Amino acid sequence: MANYSFEDFPPGRRFDFAKRTLTADEIIAFAREFDPQPMHMDEEAGRASILGGLAASGWHTSAIMMRMLFDAYLDGSTSEGSPGVDSMEWKRPVLAGDTLGGHCEVLEARISRSRPELGIVRMRAELTNQRGEIVAVCDYINMLRLAGKDADHAHG
Amino acid sequence: MANYSFEDFPPGRRFDFAKRTLTADEIIAFAREFDPQPMHMDEEAGRASILGGLAASGWHTSAIMMRMLFDAYLDGSTSEGSPGVDSMEWKRPVLAGDTLGGHCEVLEARISRSRPELGIVRMRAELTNQRGEIVAVCDYINMLRLAGKDADHAHG
Repeated sequence: MANYSFEDFPPGRRFDFAKRTLTADEIIAFAREFDPQPMHMDEEAGRASILGGLAASGWHTSAIMMRMLFDAYLDGSTSEGSPGVDSMEWKRPVLAGDTLGGHCEVLEARISRSRPELGIVRMRAELTNQRGEIVAVCDYINMLRLAGKDADHAHG
Repeated sequence: MANYSFEDFPPGRRFDFAKRTLTADEIIAFAREFDPQPMHMDEEAGRASILGGLAASGWHTSAIMMRMLFDAYLDGSTSEGSPGVDSMEWKRPVLAGDTLGGHCEVLEARISRSRPELGIVRMRAELTNQRGEIVAVCDYINMLRLAGKDADHAHG
């Protein structure tokens, strides 16, 4: 754990993701719970779809990206979560057996006007597959406390 | 199952979500796999955060919304998935014990220029809690085949 706080996120700083191979079982388990469309549940249905094979739900790809963000910089940090995502593009299918990696980068960082103990960091994450193709891009916001500051519950 | 195809999505059409109560165990299970930040894993850490209690990961809220979309209109439909999301706002914390509901609505529908067998539908989903507060809003794209059309693999 790096125990990052807001001050550790200047624009341009980049964090690389550890690589991870996605199995058919993982794809189907996520889909069964959250997105049981045929192309996420069954190899043959995936091949008959425009995705071309058993493909992860886009929301599964996003959840995996989230885990990569956690492992890359959030673990032990002063993160207070996120108010949302400006855009989430699922650019190519993520198929069973694909190995995902990538990185995220700080686009902009400023201190909150209404909560001076909190910094607002805009970031972009890019996920790539084993052929170096970009499969997903996400512009998102991360709130992180300044070093040594507690959350202000008066606003919470 | 309604077996909807592109033609069933005129602008303004609305689909209501079935209500669902989220347990602490579900929140922690999702977080353990995809987003193990303390406020998603532990009641006390959640109370010490700006979220004010054990709170679902935003990506968990999004995955639950996805399941609500499946149950509301995607099951049995000609859906070919989604190229992405224009915006995903997590407007309020979703806490253990909250009951979520909501609806989605068609914003715009057109036939793809490059894939005439496919329609592109822009939709907005809103999730509300048991107090009627909006907790999440998502503008997203759904691709659905026209009635009686197979996916065109030449482009897939």
